[in-house]
Amino acid sequence: MATIGDICMAAAINILSAFAFFVAFAILRLQPFNDRVYFPKWYLKGIRSSPMHSGGSVKKFVNLDCRTYVKFLSWMPAALKMPEPELIDHAGFDSAMYIRIYLLGLKIFVPLSVLAFAVLVPVNVTGRYLDHRKDLSFSDLDKLSISNIPPGSQRFWAHLTMAYVFTFWTCYTLYKEYKLVTSMRLHFLASQSRRPDQFTVLVRNVPPDPDESVSQHVEHFFSVNHPNHYLTHQVVYNANNLSNIVDKRKSLQNWLDYYENKYRRNSVTRPTTKTGFWGLWGTSVDAIDYYNAEIEKLLNKEATERERVISDTKAIIPAAFVSFKTRWGAAVCAQTQQSSNPTLWLTEWAPEPRDVYWPNLAIPFVELTIRRLLMAVSLFFLTFCFMFPIAIVQSLANLEGIEKVLPFLKPVIEIHTIKSFVQGFLPGIALKIFLIILPTILMTMSKIEGFTSLSLLERRSAGKYYLFILVNVFLGSIITGTAFQNLNVLLHESASEVPVTIGVSIPMKATFFITYIMVDGWAGIAAEILRIKPLIVFHLKNAFLVKTEKDREQAMDPGSLGYATAEPRIQLYFLLGLVYSVITPFFLPFIVIFFGLSYLVFRHQIINVYNQEYESGAAFWPDVQRRVITAMVIAQLLLLGLISTMDAANSTPVLLALPVLTIWFHIYCKHRFEPAFVKFPLQDAMVKDTLERATDPNFDLKTYLQDAYIHPVFRKHGCDLPLAVDDEENILVPTKRNSRMNTPGESKRGSDREDTEN
Amino acid sequence: MATIGDICMAAAINILSAFAFFVAFAILRLQPFNDRVYFPKWYLKGIRSSPMHSGGSVKKFVNLDCRTYVKFLSWMPAALKMPEPELIDHAGFDSAMYIRIYLLGLKIFVPLSVLAFAVLVPVNVTGRYLDHRKDLSFSDLDKLSISNIPPGSQRFWAHLTMAYVFTFWTCYTLYKEYKLVTSMRLHFLASQSRRPDQFTVLVRNVPPDPDESVSQHVEHFFSVNHPNHYLTHQVVYNANNLSNIVDKRKSLQNWLDYYENKYRRNSVTRPTTKTGFWGLWGTSVDAIDYYNAEIEKLLNKEATERERVISDTKAIIPAAFVSFKTRWGAAVCAQTQQSSNPTLWLTEWAPEPRDVYWPNLAIPFVELTIRRLLMAVSLFFLTFCFMFPIAIVQSLANLEGIEKVLPFLKPVIEIHTIKSFVQGFLPGIALKIFLIILPTILMTMSKIEGFTSLSLLERRSAGKYYLFILVNVFLGSIITGTAFQNLNVLLHESASEVPVTIGVSIPMKATFFITYIMVDGWAGIAAEILRIKPLIVFHLKNAFLVKTEKDREQAMDPGSLGYATAEPRIQLYFLLGLVYSVITPFFLPFIVIFFGLSYLVFRHQIINVYNQEYESGAAFWPDVQRRVITAMVIAQLLLLGLISTMDAANSTPVLLALPVLTIWFHIYCKHRFEPAFVKFPLQDAMVKDTLERATDPNFDLKTYLQDAYIHPVFRKHGCDLPLAVDDEENILVPTKRNSRMNTPGESKRGSDREDTEN
Repeated sequence: MATIGDICMAAAINILSAFAFFVAFAILRLQPFNDRVYFPKWYLKGIRSSPMHSGGSVKKFVNLDCRTYVKFLSWMPAALKMPEPELIDHAGFDSAMYIRIYLLGLKIFVPLSVLAFAVLVPVNVTGRYLDHRKDLSFSDLDKLSISNIPPGSQRFWAHLTMAYVFTFWTCYTLYKEYKLVTSMRLHFLASQSRRPDQFTVLVRNVPPDPDESVSQHVEHFFSVNHPNHYLTHQVVYNANNLSNIVDKRKSLQNWLDYYENKYRRNSVTRPTTKTGFWGLWGTSVDAIDYYNAEIEKLLNKEATERERVISDTKAIIPAAFVSFKTRWGAAVCAQTQQSSNPTLWLTEWAPEPRDVYWPNLAIPFVELTIRRLLMAVSLFFLTFCFMFPIAIVQSLANLEGIEKVLPFLKPVIEIHTIKSFVQGFLPGIALKIFLIILPTILMTMSKIEGFTSLSLLERRSAGKYYLFILVNVFLGSIITGTAFQNLNVLLHESASEVPVTIGVSIPMKATFFITYIMVDGWAGIAAEILRIKPLIVFHLKNAFLVKTEKDREQAMDPGSLGYATAEPRIQLYFLLGLVYSVITPFFLPFIVIFFGLSYLVFRHQIINVYNQEYESGAAFWPDVQRRVITAMVIAQLLLLGLISTMDAANSTPVLLALPVLTIWFHIYCKHRFEPAFVKFPLQDAMVKDTLERATDPNFDLKTYLQDAYIHPVFRKHGCDLPLAVDDEENILVPTKRNSRMNTPGESKRGSDREDTEN
Repeated sequence: MATIGDICMAAAINILSAFAFFVAFAILRLQPFNDRVYFPKWYLKGIRSSPMHSGGSVKKFVNLDCRTYVKFLSWMPAALKMPEPELIDHAGFDSAMYIRIYLLGLKIFVPLSVLAFAVLVPVNVTGRYLDHRKDLSFSDLDKLSISNIPPGSQRFWAHLTMAYVFTFWTCYTLYKEYKLVTSMRLHFLASQSRRPDQFTVLVRNVPPDPDESVSQHVEHFFSVNHPNHYLTHQVVYNANNLSNIVDKRKSLQNWLDYYENKYRRNSVTRPTTKTGFWGLWGTSVDAIDYYNAEIEKLLNKEATERERVISDTKAIIPAAFVSFKTRWGAAVCAQTQQSSNPTLWLTEWAPEPRDVYWPNLAIPFVELTIRRLLMAVSLFFLTFCFMFPIAIVQSLANLEGIEKVLPFLKPVIEIHTIKSFVQGFLPGIALKIFLIILPTILMTMSKIEGFTSLSLLERRSAGKYYLFILVNVFLGSIITGTAFQNLNVLLHESASEVPVTIGVSIPMKATFFITYIMVDGWAGIAAEILRIKPLIVFHLKNAFLVKTEKDREQAMDPGSLGYATAEPRIQLYFLLGLVYSVITPFFLPFIVIFFGLSYLVFRHQIINVYNQEYESGAAFWPDVQRRVITAMVIAQLLLLGLISTMDAANSTPVLLALPVLTIWFHIYCKHRFEPAFVKFPLQDAMVKDTLERATDPNFDLKTYLQDAYIHPVFRKHGCDLPLAVDDEENILVPTKRNSRMNTPGESKRGSDREDTEN
C-alpha cells in the first residue's frame, strides 16, 4: 500500500503536469495564428473576425505584448464571469446544463468532504486497530480509513449515521438540481422563439396503401383524424446513396484544392498523381486535370441520382414529418396513439431539423425489435467478453504468426531491437486500439438499434459506455480480472456474498483510484484545454488545403462536448466518490478538485470552443440522475457488504433500509420530473399558441414550415451541413442577439437577460 | 415416491368425488326452490321469472319430472352451445375473455401432451438408467421421467429439442391468442353503443386555487386548454361518511324485516330484543318499535349529512369527471400531459360509473408514492415472513396461554377430548384463517395503494396473490420450508446454483403436485358448480328476511368470477404444466383435464350464475400473457439447472438462448399489443364520432352525461348500488336485446349476432 508520501509525490507530479498544460495553453492561445483553434465558437457565431488582418506582419502571427502573458490564468475568472442565462443563449441549453453536472458534483462532494473530515477521520484515527495489528502491512493512509476500526466496535454507528446523512444530502441535492433543471428546461422551451420542430411530429411506419402514394396517404389520414389541426407534411426521401456521392465529391475537392495550392506556390511544374489506390500506383497523370475531370463525373452522377430520388416513388420512405397549425395540435398528435395497430402510424416529437438522423427513418417495427435484441446480446458480449477477440488478435500478432503470414518480413523481424519492441508493445496495442474505437463501436450499435435523432443516439451510446466503464473499469479494477472471469466469479457466488467480496476489496484499492483520478481527472482535464489534436489538424489543413477565407473556416474544427463518452466518465467519479465517502474519507478532496477543475475548463471550452451540434433541451438529465442514484445504491450495498464482515452484524439491518429508500426516491423523482423531459404539456402549448396568435396573427406558418425538414443534401447544392446549421442558427437566435458583439472574457452582463434567470 | 397404483387410486377418489358433486348439482339445480341460486344471472337480466309461481303446490318446490334427472349432465353441452359473440353479449366481454384463459391452457397443453407422450416418454422409458440403480428408491412413474436417463447421455438432446419445440409452440399460441383478444377487444369497443365513460376523463390532483372553487377551476382550465372539445364536468363529493350511514341503516332494516317476518308468522307475541351489543344484553324492548325508531333516527342523520355534503365546499375533493363533446377530445385529454407539473391535473380514462372506487379519488401525489412504498415493503414481508406472526398467534393460542388469559375456561380445557382437539387443530387454524383472509388483506393493500377503479384493484390484488402463490405454494412445496427460510437459502446460494437447487427437486415433487392438481383442480372445480355457501345463505335469508319479491331478489347472491384470486390460481397450473412438460411428461394429462373441466364449469357459471360487476374490456389480458411468460422463463431456468447436474454440460449453453428469446418475445408482444389495452386510438375515436354525428346529429350529450358520475349514495335515496347497476344495464344493453327471451340451455343462435363474430 502506498504511503501518504507516495500519494503526495504522485499529486505533485500531476499538479505540475496540469500546470504545464495550463502554461502551454496560456502561451498558445494568445498567438493570433492559433485564434481559430482556441476561439472557434466566436467565429461560428460570426462575432469575431480574424486578428491576422490587422497589425504588423509579425504581430499577425505572434503575440509580442508581454503584459498579456503575465496574467496567464486570466481565462479562469473569465470563464466564470458569463452569467448562466447568457451562457444558455451563447452556448446552448444542452451545454449549459452539461456543465451543471460538474457543479452537481461540487454541491454533493464539498459538504460530504467537510463532514467526513470533521466526523469520520477523527473516529477512524482514534480507532487504533491497526496499531495493535503488527502482522498486517498498512500505511498511514489506512489509519484514516474504516480499516482502523476494530471489528465489533460501537464506532461503526458513526459510519452508519454518516451513510444516512450522506444519502440524505445526496438525495436532497439531486432533488433540488432536478427541480431546477426541469423548471429551467420548461422556461427555456417556453421562451424559445418559433421553431419548426414545435409544430412538427415525426410519423413512422406509414402502412402501404395500394391506391395512394405515401404522401397522399399521410395527408388523408391526418386530415381525417386531426381535422382542425393538420397543416402540411413533408415526405422523407431515401437519399443515402446521393449523400454518399456528395461526400465522395467533397473529398476529391479537398485533393483538388491541395494540388492547386501546391501549383500556385511552385508554379514551375504542374503536380502529378497516380490513378490507382490512394495515388500510390498506376499511371501518372496531371493531378489538377484529373481531379477536375473526376469531380465533373461525380457532379453528373449526382445530378442523375438527385433526379432519380425526386421522381422515383420508390425513393420515398414510409415516414413523414407532419406539421400542425398549432403547438397544441402537434403536442396532441405526438402523445397519442393514432391507429388501432400500435406498430403503425407511430408518432413522436420531431427532432430539430439538424438533429435528425436520416438513415434510420424507414425501419419497420418488427425489424426494429430484432435489431434491438441483437444489439442487447452484442452489448452483453462486448462488455463481458471483449477480451476474447483481443486475445486472439494478440496471439495472431505474435512474431511467429507474422513470420508465417508474411515470410518476406523475416529478416526485419529477426533484428533484436525490433523483436523486443514488437513483443513488448504489440499485445498492448490491440487493447489500446479497441479502447480507442470503442465509442465508435457503441455509436454504430446505437445506430443499428434505429434511433432517429443524433441526441438520442448520443444518449444511448452513453448508456452503453457507462455499462462498459462500470463493469470493466470499476469492477475490473476492484476484483482484478477480466470482466468475464469476474462474471463467472459473481455468478458462482451467492447474492449475499457478492457485496461482501467486492466491499472487502474496496479499502485496498483506494490508493489505486486516487492515482487514477489524478492522472485521468486532473492532468487529463488540463490537457483537454490544450486541444492538441485540433491544433495540429488545423495547421496541417491550413498549410495544404486552405485557399480562401471560407476554406479556413471549414478547416476549423470546434469539436463538441462529446456527451456519449464524457458523461459516463463523470459518472465514474460520482461512483468512486460515493463508494469511498464513508470508507476512506481521505478520497473525497481528490474528487472535489476533479469536479472544480473540470467545471472551470469545460465552462471555458463551451464558451470559446465547442460548437453545439443540436439542441435537445437537456434531455439527458434524467439519465444523469438515474446513474448517480445507481452509484448511490452500489455504494450502499458495498458498504453493507464491508460492514457485515466486521462483526457489526447487529448494525447491518439498519443499512438495508437505505437502498430501499433510495430506489423509492428515484421512482418519486422519475414520476415527478421525467415527464417534463419527454412530453410537452398542453397548457404550455396553449399559452404559447395564444400569445403568438395575438402578437403575430398573419404569420404564414405553412410557408415557414414548407422546407424545414428536407434532407440536407437537397438543402443547397454542394454545401449541405454547414448551411443547414446556419439556417437553424438564424431561427434559433433572434437577430437582436446575433448583432450584439461579445468577446471572450469580456462578456458584458446583459441586464435584459437577468430577469429571465431563475 | 408414489407408484402408478397410488396415483390411480387418488385419481379414482377425486374423479368419484367430482362425479358426486356433479350428481348433487344435477339434482339440486332442477329444484324450483333453488332456481335463484343456480340461475341468478337470468333473473338479473330480467329474462327469467320465478318457477315457483306456476304449477302445483309441491311442484313449486320440488321437481318431480323424472325425465329431467336422467340427463343429469345435460348442462355440459348446454354450456358449450352458446356462441362466443352471444356469450360476450350475455355475460360481458370480461367474463368471455376470462374463460378463454382456460381455452388457452387447452391450446397449449393438448399438443404438448401429445408430443411429450410421442417423443419424450419412449426416450425416457428406454433410458433404463433406474433399472441399473438398485440403490435408489424409485417407482414406475419415475421411469417415464427424465430421471431415467443416464447422466451424460446423448438422449438429452431429445429433451433440449423438445424444450425448444414447447417454447416455440407456447409462444406461437400466446401470440395468436393475444392477437385475437386484442382484435376482439378493439371490435368490442368499436361496436359498443354510447356510454358515458367513452366521453369522460377522470382528472385528479386539481391544484387548490385561492380565488375559485374546484368546480370553477376545472371548468376554466379545460375551457382554456381544450377549447373546442370541453363539454361539462362533475365534481366528486367526499360521501364516505354518508355511505357508512346508509350501510348501517340497511343492516338495521334487515333486522326489522327479520322481526316483522317473525311477528307475521307468529302474531301472538310481539318479538323483543335487547338494546346492548348484538342484542345480547341490555334492557328488553319491543323489537319492531325499537328498530323502527332507530331507522328513523338514522334517516334523519342521513338527511342532515346529505345536506352537509352537498352544501359544504370542503366536501368537494380535488378531483373531477370531465366530459368532452367527442370521443376524440376525451382520448386526447386522457393520453396527454396537461400541466408542466406532471403531478397536477393527472388525467386518465374514467372507469365505467359502476367500476369507480370512490374513496380513493382524493389522494395527493406525494402521499400516493409513500403509500406505494409502504405497501411494497409490506408485500415483501407478507410474502416472505408471513409465518412469523402466525407462529406467534399459534404459541399464544396453546392451552397454557388460553388458561392464563381466560382462567374460567380451565375446567373445559382440561377435558381430554377437547384438549387433544385444541392441541391438534388450533395450530393449523391460525394458518387456515390467514389463508382465508389473505385475499381480503391483499385487496385492502391494493386499496391503500390508491387505485381508482374496481377492475384495477382486482388486477393489482391478483398480481400480489400470484407472487404469494409462486413463492409459498410453488417454491415452498419444492424446497420444503417456509418462504423466509427459502429466501435465506436462496440468498446464500450463488446465482448459478439457485436453478440447480430447485431444478433437482422438481422431478421428486411430481407426484405431490399431481395429487394437488386432482384435489384442488378437479374436485375443487367440481365443487365450485355446487355453490354450497350461496345455497345455504340464500335459504337462510329466504327463511328469515324475505318479505316481498324484491327482497328475494336482493337475497340472491350471484357472486362473480373473483378474478383477484381465480386468475393467479390458473397461473399456478400454467407454471406447473410448463415446468413439468419436459421433465415429467406424465404430468401433462392432469393439467389438460383441469383446463378442460374448468372451461366447462366456468362457461356454465358465467352463463347462468355470475353477475358482471364491471366491464373493463379484458384489460387483464396483458397480465395473463406476462405471467404465462414468467412461467416459461422459470421453467426454462429450472430445466437448465436440472440438466446441468446431469453431466450434459456441453448441451446447457444451447438452453441459455431460450430465456433470452422468450423475454424478447415478451417485449415484442408488449409493444405490439399492450397499447390496445391502455390507450384508445384516435382513428377509432374519430370513426365512431363521425358515425354518430351522421346517425344522431341532434343528440343532447350534455344532458346524457349530466348525472352519469354521481356517487352511488346520491343516485336514488335508499337503494343505491342495484339501481346504479340497473341504470347502466339499460345503457349497456340495447332494449332490443333485453327483450329477447333466452333461457339457459336453449339459447337460440341469433343470426343477427353471427355477423358480428370474428
